Amino acid sequence: MKTEANITLVPADEMKSVFTNILSKTGFTDTNSEKLADIFTTNSLEGIYTHGVNRFSRFIRNTRDGYIKPDEEPSLTHAAGSLEQWNGNLGPGPLNAVLATNRVMELADNNGIGLVALANTNHWMRGGLYGWQAARRGYVFIGWTNTIANMPAWGAKDAHLGNNPFVLAVPYGMDAIVLDFAMSLYSYGKMEAYANEGKKLPYQGGFDKEGTITDDPEKILDSWRTLPIGYWKGASLSLLLDILATILSGGSSVNEITERKVEYALSQVYIAISIDKLKNAPSIHKAVQSIIDDLHASVPVDDKTKIRYPGENVIKIKEESLKNGIPVSANIWEEILSL
Amino acid sequence: MKTEANITLVPADEMKSVFTNILSKTGFTDTNSEKLADIFTTNSLEGIYTHGVNRFSRFIRNTRDGYIKPDEEPSLTHAAGSLEQWNGNLGPGPLNAVLATNRVMELADNNGIGLVALANTNHWMRGGLYGWQAARRGYVFIGWTNTIANMPAWGAKDAHLGNNPFVLAVPYGMDAIVLDFAMSLYSYGKMEAYANEGKKLPYQGGFDKEGTITDDPEKILDSWRTLPIGYWKGASLSLLLDILATILSGGSSVNEITERKVEYALSQVYIAISIDKLKNAPSIHKAVQSIIDDLHASVPVDDKTKIRYPGENVIKIKEESLKNGIPVSANIWEEILSL
Repeated sequence: MKTEANITLVPADEMKSVFTNILSKTGFTDTNSEKLADIFTTNSLEGIYTHGVNRFSRFIRNTRDGYIKPDEEPSLTHAAGSLEQWNGNLGPGPLNAVLATNRVMELADNNGIGLVALANTNHWMRGGLYGWQAARRGYVFIGWTNTIANMPAWGAKDAHLGNNPFVLAVPYGMDAIVLDFAMSLYSYGKMEAYANEGKKLPYQGGFDKEGTITDDPEKILDSWRTLPIGYWKGASLSLLLDILATILSGGSSVNEITERKVEYALSQVYIAISIDKLKNAPSIHKAVQSIIDDLHASVPVDDKTKIRYPGENVIKIKEESLKNGIPVSANIWEEILSL
Repeated sequence: MKTEANITLVPADEMKSVFTNILSKTGFTDTNSEKLADIFTTNSLEGIYTHGVNRFSRFIRNTRDGYIKPDEEPSLTHAAGSLEQWNGNLGPGPLNAVLATNRVMELADNNGIGLVALANTNHWMRGGLYGWQAARRGYVFIGWTNTIANMPAWGAKDAHLGNNPFVLAVPYGMDAIVLDFAMSLYSYGKMEAYANEGKKLPYQGGFDKEGTITDDPEKILDSWRTLPIGYWKGASLSLLLDILATILSGGSSVNEITERKVEYALSQVYIAISIDKLKNAPSIHKAVQSIIDDLHASVPVDDKTKIRYPGENVIKIKEESLKNGIPVSANIWEEILSL
């Protein structure tokens, strides 16, 4: 556990109770306040502070500013078999995402696979949460969202691409293997953290204003030229994810979101596949276990390195935080208490 | 056009005719010889030499060695609505892929979205081809394949992951936007080409035997420690794509393929979405065009750089090759003529 002077350890039930009260004051129903507080607390408990406690104040501000409509929920726009288009009606992103995930699992129950495209929704916070939600119930989950432009195209100076986070999740026994990643190598939050500590990035993470590749976070924060994963490959993947989210949902593209200056009314895609519908369903856990065993049999580069699957640490982090409290920057917690 | 001494310019119809004759001698029916020759020639015409003419000899050798069964084609194992599992019966990978793509488009016609998982198939050569096939007919295409292990997990020295190529394609007017990329930043073929010319890679592409990150292709070819796109992110994406291909098809995992030493009996996933089924279908071309226009409005880093969408160059390369012939290394063409 971190014990630096500027870190407060907040018990999960206290955090959830604080969140619930603020959400109720902000216009959410008691039920939705409870649900949203649970999501922000769970994300924090599981170590995703950037999309949990650290983003709670911004979520409240965006609601007070009218970008998030506390009373709205998604409505069906168009149904075509296993494919449905929904309007998020600018409701709270995490609740819209939970509903879209529930709905796409129903579609998968009917036809093996389902797709829900959601227009006009808001930031879903931590996409991996919906991967956990579906995978723990026996579904493969594939989902992504677009964002405001925050990354240049390959060969460009100015940001025309989103970092468009992408989630892949698969059931793993009673748990899940969940990959949740953005198309930029480092988030701005991560680069700011390194810059604040006066550290270089572990790997080159962008270009400076002169166009030289660099591991200096200050220079990238200055140029806004963050590096896509896999260079030209991640830039192209970001573009395609935006095109797909936009055309499948009939909603806004990265460019249209960017023109509005504030990141709201996003487009998202949710795909679920029902494992139970597969011929080999009874042997799937064994197949996944065999792949994970082989991964763990890798020879690590040194004695300190452990080879992990994505999501492997989540359960351990959650147990520690439940026992010791959730580590929060004191100033962030103070800001929340003043909301 | 390249005019170096060791490059031969082969007219497309001559290349296709040479391929057709060799395929017929190797046990393929006249129809399948024609189809396969067309695929290998098209891939070469469109500039993907590594999975066209440059790989033809290996395809013939693998067939003669019995890993590819010229007479086999996929058979349905299990159907569950929009989701089908097929056995590739070790048939030729490109023909199995064309059939799987045709079938998944039929499933999408019925229910908006379809998924075909194909076990026990062979190398599909250029995955992007099936993206073009589907997108030109009005379908979104998402597909991937697993491979033999050729990339270490993040933090590992030895290869337990495949580079598992992934394809995303979307209709664009009468044409398509097609992204086709492997999970390793540089292919071994690309690194060998740089090494042969005594050049460094444009960006760091792997680790040397001491574990230091490097742009020296010789050192990476020596260590076999190629870099995943986005470091830990691409390594995780490779793992998840293998798990999904394996469990959805009920076929072999990267580990099982690797234990057999020769890369055959692969697992693949094909997803198609019918654009015509969407409420906003009539306005989709306009939406895609608007995103591409915005991409092209990016400020390039210098006067020589052009910002492109994935696949933008393909039509131009094809036109040039149709006019001037397909550039082939003289020794590769000689080897083919001797088959």
